[in-house]
This record gives sequence, C-alpha cells and structure tokens, in this order.
Amino acid sequence: MSIPSFVIGIAGGTGAGKTTVARTVAETVGEAVTRIPVDNYYKDLSHLEYEERADVNYDHPSAFEWDLLREQLDALLMGQPIEMPQYDFEIHNRKDERVRVEPSDVIVLEGIFSLFDDQILEMLDLKVYVMTDADVRILRRIERDVVDRGRDLEGVIEQYLETVKPMHEQFVSPTKKNADVIIPEGANRMAVDLLVEKVEAELVPGEAEGDAERTVPLDVGEDRPTRVELESSGRPDD
Amino acid sequence: MSIPSFVIGIAGGTGAGKTTVARTVAETVGEAVTRIPVDNYYKDLSHLEYEERADVNYDHPSAFEWDLLREQLDALLMGQPIEMPQYDFEIHNRKDERVRVEPSDVIVLEGIFSLFDDQILEMLDLKVYVMTDADVRILRRIERDVVDRGRDLEGVIEQYLETVKPMHEQFVSPTKKNADVIIPEGANRMAVDLLVEKVEAELVPGEAEGDAERTVPLDVGEDRPTRVELESSGRPDD
Repeated sequence: MSIPSFVIGIAGGTGAGKTTVARTVAETVGEAVTRIPVDNYYKDLSHLEYEERADVNYDHPSAFEWDLLREQLDALLMGQPIEMPQYDFEIHNRKDERVRVEPSDVIVLEGIFSLFDDQILEMLDLKVYVMTDADVRILRRIERDVVDRGRDLEGVIEQYLETVKPMHEQFVSPTKKNADVIIPEGANRMAVDLLVEKVEAELVPGEAEGDAERTVPLDVGEDRPTRVELESSGRPDD
Repeated sequence: MSIPSFVIGIAGGTGAGKTTVARTVAETVGEAVTRIPVDNYYKDLSHLEYEERADVNYDHPSAFEWDLLREQLDALLMGQPIEMPQYDFEIHNRKDERVRVEPSDVIVLEGIFSLFDDQILEMLDLKVYVMTDADVRILRRIERDVVDRGRDLEGVIEQYLETVKPMHEQFVSPTKKNADVIIPEGANRMAVDLLVEKVEAELVPGEAEGDAERTVPLDVGEDRPTRVELESSGRPDD
C-alpha cells in the first residue's frame, strides 16, 4: 500500500448524507478504503452514571477525545495498525472492546466534526463538506430516529432544537470554510465520481491493486447497509 | 477530438473567482479547452441608444440571447465550429465581428448564469458553482472596477446594491442547487485538481493528445491574463 495513505475528511450536518458519500466512494474506489467514523472517538464516560451520560451534549466538540483520534489517524497514516474504539449509542458510552484497523491506501474520516480540528485538518488530503438544506436534514433525522428506531417524535424535535441545531450552527456549519469542495444535497453521482477519480489518481499505480475494499466493521450508528438495521440512538448522524 | 466534447459549466456570483477556476482548469488540463463566456451572449442592443443600453439590467437573465447560446453550444458539442459573438462592455453592446471557435475536447462555459437555463444544464457534463462570501465578492468587484478601471466608487456601490445584489440573490445564488460540486472561495488547488482529474478521466486516451490549450480570444471582460489589462466595464464578473 501507499504510505502515507490518502485521507479524505467528509463533514456536514446531521442527515446531510455524509455516510452515503463515504460509502459510495469506498465502494467505487478500486483500492482498500478504511472508514473511520469520528463518532467512535466519543469520550469514554464510564465514570458517569447512565442518566448523567444521557445529559451530555454530544453535539459539542468537547464530547470527543481528540488526542486519541489524532494519534490513531497519524498512526494509520504512517502505516501502523490501530485499536480503534467502538461506541455504543444505546448506553451513551464507549464499548469495552476495540477493533483492530489495519492501515490502507485510502482512509475516509467521516462525521459532523471531520473538518473541525486544526491538527486533523493538517492530516487530510481532501476535505469535503456535504451541504444539505436543514429542513431536508431534520426530515432524514426524523425518519431515521422516529420511523426506523421508534423514538419519540417530541423528544427528537426537542433535542434537535435544543442542541443539534445550535451546535450545528456554531460548530459544524463553519467548518464548511475548511472544505476543498462542497457537495450539495448528499451524494450525487458526479460529485462522487470526482472524489473517486482524485483518489485513484493519487494512488501509485501497481502498488495497491488487488486489495478488496476494506471497510471497518462498525457496531454503531453510521455504517449500516440498510436502514432497517439501524439501532435506536441519540446522536449518530449521516 | 472526442465527440461529444466534455462540457463544464462554472457559475457563481460576481467576484466569486469563476474565471480563475476556469483559467486554471484550462491551463492544467492537457487537452484543448475552449472557454465560452456567457457574457458574450448578451443580446444585440443595436436598436437602442447608448443611454438606453446603459440602463438595461444586465444582471437579469433576460439580458441574454439564450437561443443563440444553446444553438452554438450544441453545435460545438456536435463537433461543428461556431461564429461566437463578442461583447463590448464599453459601449454596452455586441460587437460587429464574431470569432470563429473550433470544437474541442473540453468546453468550459463560464458566467454568472452558466447554471441557469434548463436546456443548457442538459448539455453540461459537470456543473460547478464557485461560492464566495458576498463581502469578499464586492471587495473584488470594487478592486476591479474602481482601483483597476478607474470607475466611480459611488456608482459601483449603487449599481451593486440596486441590481447586482438583488439579481444575484434572485437568479444566480439559487443555481447553486443545480451544481454537482460547489467550490468554496474561488480556486483552491485541490478543487481544481478534482475537476482536472475528472476531465482527463473522461477524455478518451490517445485521441486528443498533442492539442495545445486553445482558449478562445476574448476582447471583453473576463479572460485577461493580468488585472492591469482589464478594461473599464460595467458588468463582467469573475
């Protein structure tokens, strides 16, 4: 594989379509792609009770363990494997087990805060922001949380207005400025093609062929093949 | 050359950096690139007096001869040469002479209304909107019109507030929705790279090599190599 890897950051608000873009890129690129959900780096809150954990503002950047993400992304870039934490949205806490992630030619960092941290930004080769209207995004969130996961509509609305929306406007939306390109309305075929062509042009020919797509197994939130399998959860977004 | 050509539309508000993106793409792509400024398709207003022409709202889509642009773009796409009109911003009118434009592998259609017309949109393979903050855009316009072209600052401000800004918000900005990708803040290297990789991937290898870059000569507005050479003018934008 190529060292350092080619790293794409994909940010955008809840329901913007980040995961669809990331998945489509991963499926289309003919090389090994490792997807790293920023959500996996929510802080370990084992020292808090469940009720206290449920009250944490998970839409604020301080909810993440940035040092760990920086360190692990850096390790992957240098060709070293990592033990990636896993997050359980059901219990609002990090899982005990980690998942070993091998380095690969292409790394996709996805999550609302993918373009937030200065040091992370330095590690990204291609910075993408998925820009989707707020009404479309909240409708997708409602569909996911209420229709698919059976959560209470009032609760979803309240959480959206009280934390998701203000945090988005304060912390997520401004990271659009850090993007190299903005993709409107989730994954359009041409935009994904552009990303894929770029990735393939960057990879050294002959070094990486034959690798199967390697998508990190996710037990949480984002990376479900079908909507039916999505778990009830508070904060994961696409 | 390849038939049909690969056509990129580059839209965005005044001062957004469209021309810089178009020029950089044209310089970087290793094939023949023909740049078509939508401004060249301002209607022939020879039937009006100068004062009447000066009063026309050139930021409104009705100021353009859409049929001619559609017809000529279609001809180029089919591999036929066109006689492209030229526009003179000094006299607010189309010039008498036209310029012969040969078909080429890549066509870049650039202008505030590149992503406006439904039939034109159908002809575009890649739709790009250059999104730049309005304050940055007006400062660029002031720099161009006042500093470089010696126009009256008050007049530039008045025109901006009375027609440029409202027309932008009503007609130009909404065309962002038609874009495949949005490029923030003018030409960033990575965004241009993405466009170039895509263009080069689309062109059939071996058919088009060896062509020099072919940029249509422009007597007006947009395509100046240096700011010093810009003419005084009312409406051209970048």
